[in-house]
Amino acid sequence: MAVQGLDALLVTPGADLRYLSGYHAKPLERLTCLVVPADADAVLVVPALERAAAEAAGVEVDLRTWGETDDPYALVSDVVPASATVAVDNQMWAERVLALQQRFDDVRLAGPIVSELRMRKTPEEVDALREAGAAIDRVHARMGEWLRPGRTEREVGADVARAIVEEGHEQVDFVIVGSGPNGASPHHEVSDRVIEVGDPVVVDIGGTTPAGYCSDSTRNYLAGGAAPAEYLAAYEVLEEAQRVQREHARPGVTAESVDAVGRQVIADAGLGDLFIHRTGHGIGQETHEEPYIVDGNDLVLEPGMAFSIEPGVYHEGRFGARIEDIAVCTEDGLEVLNRRPRGLVVL
Amino acid sequence: MAVQGLDALLVTPGADLRYLSGYHAKPLERLTCLVVPADADAVLVVPALERAAAEAAGVEVDLRTWGETDDPYALVSDVVPASATVAVDNQMWAERVLALQQRFDDVRLAGPIVSELRMRKTPEEVDALREAGAAIDRVHARMGEWLRPGRTEREVGADVARAIVEEGHEQVDFVIVGSGPNGASPHHEVSDRVIEVGDPVVVDIGGTTPAGYCSDSTRNYLAGGAAPAEYLAAYEVLEEAQRVQREHARPGVTAESVDAVGRQVIADAGLGDLFIHRTGHGIGQETHEEPYIVDGNDLVLEPGMAFSIEPGVYHEGRFGARIEDIAVCTEDGLEVLNRRPRGLVVL
Repeated sequence: MAVQGLDALLVTPGADLRYLSGYHAKPLERLTCLVVPADADAVLVVPALERAAAEAAGVEVDLRTWGETDDPYALVSDVVPASATVAVDNQMWAERVLALQQRFDDVRLAGPIVSELRMRKTPEEVDALREAGAAIDRVHARMGEWLRPGRTEREVGADVARAIVEEGHEQVDFVIVGSGPNGASPHHEVSDRVIEVGDPVVVDIGGTTPAGYCSDSTRNYLAGGAAPAEYLAAYEVLEEAQRVQREHARPGVTAESVDAVGRQVIADAGLGDLFIHRTGHGIGQETHEEPYIVDGNDLVLEPGMAFSIEPGVYHEGRFGARIEDIAVCTEDGLEVLNRRPRGLVVL
Repeated sequence: MAVQGLDALLVTPGADLRYLSGYHAKPLERLTCLVVPADADAVLVVPALERAAAEAAGVEVDLRTWGETDDPYALVSDVVPASATVAVDNQMWAERVLALQQRFDDVRLAGPIVSELRMRKTPEEVDALREAGAAIDRVHARMGEWLRPGRTEREVGADVARAIVEEGHEQVDFVIVGSGPNGASPHHEVSDRVIEVGDPVVVDIGGTTPAGYCSDSTRNYLAGGAAPAEYLAAYEVLEEAQRVQREHARPGVTAESVDAVGRQVIADAGLGDLFIHRTGHGIGQETHEEPYIVDGNDLVLEPGMAFSIEPGVYHEGRFGARIEDIAVCTEDGLEVLNRRPRGLVVL
């Protein structure tokens, strides 16, 4: 904060608050705000009726409570002078940002500061991500129980969602079951489409563990029969691209170079137009956080940085495929947290 | 918008976007933004890889897509001039608000406009809330299956969460099982406390139905044995206060008067200090939305307004109680959507 000339950090419920204070507060309309002055002890502004919940969460800073008809922003002003340069969490709601802009001369984003902390995982955080990775691997290992011709994506997705909880997550974050042409929509979720024999199916799933860390892994399945030859050829290229990316990623290389080496493999095979998104995103207490593995991000990777490696190929109206692992930079290499076979799994 | 001098409304993923467009987009880091100019057709700015998802959701406006390394805000500027007065949804992320403030001279909140629409429910929306209310009533009706001495709040809560889905919700929004002294924390969720004979237990639960509407209802249970006499006396006062509020609420009275009439009953019984929160909140596609039933809100209720009536009494370290129904103003009265008995239920 000193380097960036900030006088105070203001953090409302969300991943930043949980990371900084351990308080997993619900994002509701009453203001909860962690105030971290550069030169004084932090305080947590909290609605009176949530004091007990904050205490139960083990928040160790001084609590300042406000009643239903009080102005909660006045409590922030008690700690931070109006002339201060304050930084707000990147996901703070607009209604709060504008209210704070009425009270403080200079309101900036806390992202650059908090991300510097959040994107370098401690050994305990890596353990938590490893556990999340193993949990989602166990769900992929059971895919044959649910994915078969004649069932809809929605039916399969409901079973997968239940298994995400059974295998050790506290919460289901997303379930993508993209069969046949639906696989070509990277952010497809589920639909009433009935899975047919010979359909390639993209299954991209993730949840949050009780420790608060996220899983995210994509594998590809064939619901019996034979996949189109063009799909199989593209899949082979995709596997090679993802392998090259896993071998390249390590401390000292840039985020964008990880994207580039995989993109090159796919382009060399004449399929460059089918790889329509970045290679990956950081992961931790949020599924998507820094560092982003994308062209233009010249961040140099460091030990403890965790991110997805998930190239994909998408042929609109026909099929799609994506292979996704979560990986974390070690002191001198890369630990890949997802261990399921990456080849097309024929069920 | 014309009355308020607004040139454009900018709405990112969240309840406002779902309400206005039907698109239930995930709140992720790539910008999705519905742009509604005052004098031209709306457009939806969407990441290229989410175009198919937006189309599948039935979004009927023109889609403008951006690629991974494009500046998505440039697409907003293509539609809205820099000199415009724009309004952003109240929950837009700070990083977007600050980016838009770089591009537009005057950035305000869309809340006052969108709330005017959202807080008056159409008959179809009231049907959806009625269905949600019946679903959560069915969960309360089954409480005896799970709530008994010797089990922890967490165990009971897990069973209740499963039942919330079984009885017709798509998603569990919250589960509060506050036993004994934990009932005195209004926003307690669950803990490892073992429920004992004679414990009063506050159960406040809600979820979202497939139609996208929320339920929220609180009932109070006694896990066998006898409750403390002081609790029973306070409970009787609470029932009377909530009854008086239900009889008072109707079109033409103010939101704050609904709060006041119940608070008076509790104060008259000498328990005023125990009612530490407002009476209620609006409900619809969000569990908490306008109108808030709180001192200082002189909004006059109108037909179609839906909100909770949930007075409570909280005796720190000992017990708490809250009775909560969702109600909707009809043309000349009030329809209460939760029908379970409001008295203390002895299991």
